[in-house]
Amino acid sequence: MITVIRNAWIVTQNTGRDILKGDVVMENDNIISVGGKYNNAADKEIDAEGDIVMPGLINTHTHVAMAPLKGVCDDLPFDKFLDATSKIDRNRDTCDLEIGTKLGCMEMMRGGTTTFVDLYYSEDIIARAVQEAGLRGVLCWCCLDEALTTQRGNPINNCKKFCRTYKNKRKIIPGVGLQGVYVCGEETCLSAKEFSEENDLPLSLHLSETRTEVNNHKQTTGLRPVEWLNNIGALSPNMIAAHSAWLTMNEVKIMGKIGMSVSLCAVSNMKLATGGIAPVPELVSNGVNVTIGTDSNSTNNSLDMFSEMKVAGLFHKFARWDATVMPAQQLLDFGTINGAKSIGMSDKLGSIEIGKYADIIIIDGHAPNMRPLIPGNIVANLVYSASSLNVKTVFCQGNLLVEEGKIITLDSEKIMNKSEDIWNKLSTS
Amino acid sequence: MITVIRNAWIVTQNTGRDILKGDVVMENDNIISVGGKYNNAADKEIDAEGDIVMPGLINTHTHVAMAPLKGVCDDLPFDKFLDATSKIDRNRDTCDLEIGTKLGCMEMMRGGTTTFVDLYYSEDIIARAVQEAGLRGVLCWCCLDEALTTQRGNPINNCKKFCRTYKNKRKIIPGVGLQGVYVCGEETCLSAKEFSEENDLPLSLHLSETRTEVNNHKQTTGLRPVEWLNNIGALSPNMIAAHSAWLTMNEVKIMGKIGMSVSLCAVSNMKLATGGIAPVPELVSNGVNVTIGTDSNSTNNSLDMFSEMKVAGLFHKFARWDATVMPAQQLLDFGTINGAKSIGMSDKLGSIEIGKYADIIIIDGHAPNMRPLIPGNIVANLVYSASSLNVKTVFCQGNLLVEEGKIITLDSEKIMNKSEDIWNKLSTS
Repeated sequence: MITVIRNAWIVTQNTGRDILKGDVVMENDNIISVGGKYNNAADKEIDAEGDIVMPGLINTHTHVAMAPLKGVCDDLPFDKFLDATSKIDRNRDTCDLEIGTKLGCMEMMRGGTTTFVDLYYSEDIIARAVQEAGLRGVLCWCCLDEALTTQRGNPINNCKKFCRTYKNKRKIIPGVGLQGVYVCGEETCLSAKEFSEENDLPLSLHLSETRTEVNNHKQTTGLRPVEWLNNIGALSPNMIAAHSAWLTMNEVKIMGKIGMSVSLCAVSNMKLATGGIAPVPELVSNGVNVTIGTDSNSTNNSLDMFSEMKVAGLFHKFARWDATVMPAQQLLDFGTINGAKSIGMSDKLGSIEIGKYADIIIIDGHAPNMRPLIPGNIVANLVYSASSLNVKTVFCQGNLLVEEGKIITLDSEKIMNKSEDIWNKLSTS
Repeated sequence: MITVIRNAWIVTQNTGRDILKGDVVMENDNIISVGGKYNNAADKEIDAEGDIVMPGLINTHTHVAMAPLKGVCDDLPFDKFLDATSKIDRNRDTCDLEIGTKLGCMEMMRGGTTTFVDLYYSEDIIARAVQEAGLRGVLCWCCLDEALTTQRGNPINNCKKFCRTYKNKRKIIPGVGLQGVYVCGEETCLSAKEFSEENDLPLSLHLSETRTEVNNHKQTTGLRPVEWLNNIGALSPNMIAAHSAWLTMNEVKIMGKIGMSVSLCAVSNMKLATGGIAPVPELVSNGVNVTIGTDSNSTNNSLDMFSEMKVAGLFHKFARWDATVMPAQQLLDFGTINGAKSIGMSDKLGSIEIGKYADIIIIDGHAPNMRPLIPGNIVANLVYSASSLNVKTVFCQGNLLVEEGKIITLDSEKIMNKSEDIWNKLSTS
């Protein structure tokens, strides 16, 4: 099966960050030609004259199954927010998780995200829903100390079982998760890290999201979370630390030395008013791989990676009194190639290059909010002017998920209609 | 001509902030029925089952003709940004302004804005383009001291002439503009204010956008800008002060006493990294009417009022360490009814009520990023989850401007294609 997308502006995100005008060709899973004119026959032809072709966005921190929780607990102080969400979480059944996951996948794929990193329990249920949706899920089973969990059985064992079951499944990448140092003791952290490294699996965790988390950990252990994890030997280059909003320079340096990744969640941090945000310029200059996550629909309340790139940039420019901090190209890198690196898939994802997976999105260039559109402003337009709904067409590993704005892998109306039942059930529970 | 929109969720923004399920009916310019079932015949029927009907958004600060300048001068220090934009501005001709205005109108109407306040010179050219586009332009001719202008003739006289010519033109509301205290002496400020009050015209101005502006004015006059304007008697309830990012509590109190409006431009302030932002909770509690503006495409780089509402909220929650600050309903008020008040049109705009102008937008409720959708989260979804491109259909004073995402008043492709020529000409000039 050969698909050719013709006459597009191609934002390659290759090493040279080349912007080309021409055709992109995919054969089955892979990209086989980029730029120039493709004169051979194809099974499917897409005319993308005036449109933009770019790599699918990579959302490195979310809890996809929470998609039906939009607006359940907004504008609340953080402790009340936590009470409300954990109460809701306890009342969810398998069907809620399945529908929630599908709804979240629909929102993401419609908005140009082709890969996401999830941190949750019951990733087996989530995996089946993600497979139906057709995007790539890096599904990190959330571990915490057995004494503190509501999971049946030992979370680490649940995680291992899930990872073994879903290894080598198409477009599902199983991973290890850690809820955070506040519920994960030394043994849990070390087991997670060892299993992740032995099996080459991504390791997603919440790290230093709030000042309370940091202060409490310092009170208990005498060390800040990153320092403590480093001391016990639990840090890993496989780690994607979400939030990391309260770091000292010493911690930034440790993270850089380890070579780990951070998932910036600017919108979530701001909306929850937890007061901190990841120090991106310092992280970058110390060698930490910075990526972007939306967090969940209960905190954001959106899974829109375009908006997330813009807000992350706005925030840092403002906070540093420096408009030159985090220029558009860097923000786009965070949302694409850096995301690929964080999950160990730089060779297959994050750019439009021959031999990589065909994770390709087409952005409508015939929309007034994207015009004028020329090589000189194309990256700026993607980061500062685009809406997620400018995305028209989405391929993930060669599979067509969205065509001209229409989701084609799932029964959208049915899923959306069920989402109201979930909201009503959970919000009054 | 009677149009009925059936079976929608109606976010009325009336005094009770009622959310109704039912029909909205407009006859020519006006809304004649809201909620309930409309059983009579209509000339046009729209089935909006599952969709949201709400008042058109009101963007209280922009420079619409700058729409083709997306990405011309991003990520630059403020002084270099000013140099770049003023150089570009000098090289624009009548045709550039016309096309730019149409492009900006297209972006705004496509994203659900039905009224905007513009601050610029050559508002006569802009007015003709806005009339073709069909949305409501509050066009404030920018005045500054004659010695400092590149306008032909005296700016105050130009403004007066424009206002007299365009008085009582359908959907064009002429207004007075002041560039800012840095180029407007006492005489200019007082003339503008007097003409505005004598003729009941809105008065848009840049006020306390940057710390440099405030410090310089204090050095020259001994007073901060608001204090100085108050001392010379130039403040007015007709004023819509854009940015107002560097205010003392004394200035906030003065502004409240006068009863003026502020146009928050959070994205622009953050992107330009000018370090300040309007102190919204204090402005509100002191009686200032807070509204929302996008600023121009050269600073934002978007005219998306949905994104602007969200970012304004995020910013304040973050800066105050308080997630309860600026809840969704208040942000929606800023973008609708408060905008109407700022231009003296509370009786005709800003809510869906009988007798008001039919400035109505329909939001797609069949989109995953807007679901679940129920009365309990509908306002949160509009503010925190919606994309401007969820807007499907737009009426301004009863005229259909956008239908199912398609702009029907202008030749969109032609205008968009011309915008690249403008960018290329200006960016290399």
